[in-house]
Amino acid sequence: MRPSRLGILGLGAIGGSVARQAKLAGVATVVGWSPEPSERVAAVKQGALDDAPAKAADVARVADLLVLAAPPAANLAQLEALAPHLPAAALVTDVGSVKRAIVALAERLGLGARFAGSHPLAGSHRRGFEASRGDLFRGAVVYVTPCTGGGGDGAAREISHFWETVLGAHAVTLDAARHDAQVAATSHVPQVVASLLAYFLARHTPPGASLGPGALDTTRLAASDSALWTEILLMNRDEVLPALRALEEPLGAVERALEAGDGPALAAWLTRAAEWRRRVDL
Amino acid sequence: MRPSRLGILGLGAIGGSVARQAKLAGVATVVGWSPEPSERVAAVKQGALDDAPAKAADVARVADLLVLAAPPAANLAQLEALAPHLPAAALVTDVGSVKRAIVALAERLGLGARFAGSHPLAGSHRRGFEASRGDLFRGAVVYVTPCTGGGGDGAAREISHFWETVLGAHAVTLDAARHDAQVAATSHVPQVVASLLAYFLARHTPPGASLGPGALDTTRLAASDSALWTEILLMNRDEVLPALRALEEPLGAVERALEAGDGPALAAWLTRAAEWRRRVDL
Repeated sequence: MRPSRLGILGLGAIGGSVARQAKLAGVATVVGWSPEPSERVAAVKQGALDDAPAKAADVARVADLLVLAAPPAANLAQLEALAPHLPAAALVTDVGSVKRAIVALAERLGLGARFAGSHPLAGSHRRGFEASRGDLFRGAVVYVTPCTGGGGDGAAREISHFWETVLGAHAVTLDAARHDAQVAATSHVPQVVASLLAYFLARHTPPGASLGPGALDTTRLAASDSALWTEILLMNRDEVLPALRALEEPLGAVERALEAGDGPALAAWLTRAAEWRRRVDL
Repeated sequence: MRPSRLGILGLGAIGGSVARQAKLAGVATVVGWSPEPSERVAAVKQGALDDAPAKAADVARVADLLVLAAPPAANLAQLEALAPHLPAAALVTDVGSVKRAIVALAERLGLGARFAGSHPLAGSHRRGFEASRGDLFRGAVVYVTPCTGGGGDGAAREISHFWETVLGAHAVTLDAARHDAQVAATSHVPQVVASLLAYFLARHTPPGASLGPGALDTTRLAASDSALWTEILLMNRDEVLPALRALEEPLGAVERALEAGDGPALAAWLTRAAEWRRRVDL
């Protein structure tokens, strides 16, 4: 679908970028809401929104496509609270990084034929409307997770079409459970690993020591919003916890190789990691 | 010192960059050697070297400053083999990331007043002469580690002066043992953590899954040269091994918080990491 009245709840880096890019793509009316009055003002002033009413329900009421762009727990609360206010034919999506809970809620609310989850792989460790951009989704992969049962696939097709034609993203349809298992490995574990290294360095960097570009890159994600990531990790903990435990075995292996002074084992371990990393850059 | 005949053994990303930048800075004669004939040819052709003889000893024989820029184990072997060929007043340094072993060897060879170790924080996960640059060291921190005993400080001052005036780096003098403990935390653990995550992702990324920019940044270091890092980690293993073990406690803490669904504990853990990471960016 190509909305003529796009509603966006949450004007952070993701929601703000949806707004900016939709206006640049010529969507007639983009209406948004943020709990932060200053973000609402800034978004209108900078032309990302045509209007920013003080109540979220006033956005939901007018939208033919509503995008929930708050943190995951707030998206769940908004979907439940605003479902009665949605126009009869309106479609709804969200942009959270965990998908089972919101897809299940949409089904329970009887929105299965009008809701599909979205997860754009275009985050930033920067936050707020000031981190939004007019090209954030161009070329980015967006996972779209349908509701099960009648009509779910149709809604997912419409939402995918929106991401592709309005925002220039590449939409990939994926079952919500498979999505959550996949991002546990490809996104949530990397977040925890970056934070783990930052946590270690916070304790073990001698005063005045310089950090090279490698340590800075490897910890960049650790600067992300802690409150947001607490929600994401808790909401996906049944997938994240076993994935984190799966780090212990290779960490033990490299420690044993070092302890034994086993050059070939250490080289094989590093080479396996290097080959994978060089391949994903291609 | 400002050399008039600079010798460089090893023409990879670091050695090649020393050559390029020295020529750009007007050093009269820069002579280099690499075990790879093609690198010797390329370095002369591209104006990074005035001459590239086929034997390393023919570089050592003419240099008033000799820079050992091979991997750490090869630097040790070169220093031992070439010490007899050095001109009487020549100074020597290396660019390896571990410093105790080579400083101790220089002392044992009686070069204590003519050698200081160097470690420029300007590496790259790319390798070979083609990864060298004419500005790699400009503004970079270079640790300079003196030999102990008579004359060590004087040699370290001369080597520091070379890094600063010829290559535009910022030299910081540091005891070799303190250096090795510090880089175990700030460089060697980040390397292992990036490789650990890559090793995990090599196994757990579903076929066709997309990786976001976060996972790519966090694993970038994993693409580094495995043979080089095997040497570095083994040479510093008495420092690296306890540092790696110190990762287990915070990893266990985040797992326990997830298992218990303990939001405040998880948020506190992530916040500590985030605050440190945001601070180092300032």
